[in-house]
Amino acid sequence: MAYPESFEELMACFKMLPGIGNKGAERMTYRIMDMEEDQVQRFAEALTQFKKRIRYCETCGNICESEQCDICANKERDQSTICVVETPKDVFAMEKLKEYHGLYHVLGGTISIMNGITMDDLNIHSLFDRITDEVKEVIIATNPTSDGETTALFLARLLANRNVEVTRIAHGLPVGGSLDYADEMTLLKSLEGRKKL
Amino acid sequence: MAYPESFEELMACFKMLPGIGNKGAERMTYRIMDMEEDQVQRFAEALTQFKKRIRYCETCGNICESEQCDICANKERDQSTICVVETPKDVFAMEKLKEYHGLYHVLGGTISIMNGITMDDLNIHSLFDRITDEVKEVIIATNPTSDGETTALFLARLLANRNVEVTRIAHGLPVGGSLDYADEMTLLKSLEGRKKL
Repeated sequence: MAYPESFEELMACFKMLPGIGNKGAERMTYRIMDMEEDQVQRFAEALTQFKKRIRYCETCGNICESEQCDICANKERDQSTICVVETPKDVFAMEKLKEYHGLYHVLGGTISIMNGITMDDLNIHSLFDRITDEVKEVIIATNPTSDGETTALFLARLLANRNVEVTRIAHGLPVGGSLDYADEMTLLKSLEGRKKL
Repeated sequence: MAYPESFEELMACFKMLPGIGNKGAERMTYRIMDMEEDQVQRFAEALTQFKKRIRYCETCGNICESEQCDICANKERDQSTICVVETPKDVFAMEKLKEYHGLYHVLGGTISIMNGITMDDLNIHSLFDRITDEVKEVIIATNPTSDGETTALFLARLLANRNVEVTRIAHGLPVGGSLDYADEMTLLKSLEGRKKL
C-alpha cells in the first residue's frame, strides 16, 4: 500500500533536498501535516518569492535581491581589495569575521578537469574587467581542494601581467587542531607556510 | 551581514522541519537556488495541495484523500480483526509486511500522564463504536514504550466486557539481535514471552 498521491508527491519534493532520504522525507511530510494551514501557506509562498526575488549581483556574482549586492553597493568598503571566493556561502563565512572590509568576486565554482568545467563556465571574465588602477590586491580564497588550488594557480597566472598584487589565503593546521590528527597535506602546507617568530 | 530577506525567510521555513538546524536550512536554501523555476513551483504547489487534500479517515483515523482510507474502503479485507496503532506511520509499516489483512484503528498518539494526554484527546471513542458482532479480535500494536504499554493495558481493560479477543503484539529480542546487547527490559519481555519448541 502506498501513501496517498499528494503525500507521495510532497515526499518526492523533500527528497530533492540535500541529505534527505526516504525516512527523512517521510518525517518532514508528517511534520507538514501537523502544521497549521497558514504556516504551510507561508512555506509555499517563501519558496515562490525566493525564486522570484533572488538573483546574482551583476558586479561580483554574490546573491542579492537587486542589481547590486549590499557589499558592492556600499561605497564605504575598501575598493582596492577584491577577495575571490567559490560560492556566495563563502562570502557570508568571510563576512561573519567582520575583519575584511574589501570587495568580493564569486566564481560560482572552480575549474575542474574531471567535471569538464572550464574558465568560460565560471564568473571569471568579469573579474578581469573589474581590475582597474584602483585595485591594489586580489586575495584568492578558493578552497584548499585540488580543484580550488588549480583555480588559484590559474587565476594567479592570468593576473601576473596586471599591475596588482595577487595573494592566497594561508593553509595549515586549524586553530585548536592537533598535529597528531592532521592529514599529510595539511601538515605539509603548515610546514611550507611557516613564519619567523 | 545577513542574507537577503527572501533567503532568510525560506531558511526560517526549512528550520521548522524536524532535525533541520541553521546549517541544514542554509544548505537546503542554496539547493533551491540551483533548482529550475518549474521545480520550485512544483514544490510550492505540492505543499499547498498536500495541505488541501490530505485528511484523516472518518472510520479509522488513518491518512487519506477521501472520506475513507483505502483500507477501510476495501471490503475484501478481513473485517473481523482490528489492529490498533499509534500513528498512520505504523499502518504503513504494518502494510509493508503484506502479512496482515485486517483493518486498523489509529489512535493518534498514546495516553500520557506526563504530557497530560487522556483518552478524550485520542481517537479512542470511535474504536468502541466499531466493535460490532463481526469483530472477533483487537490486536493492540502500540509501541513498547511506557506510554504505549499504559495505553495497551487501558484499552484491554475497557474492552474486557466486550465479546472480543484482545491481543498484544509480542515483544522480545529483534531478529538478528544479540542477548549481549539487549537492554534489560527487552530481555525480560523476551523471557516472559517464551514459547514451547
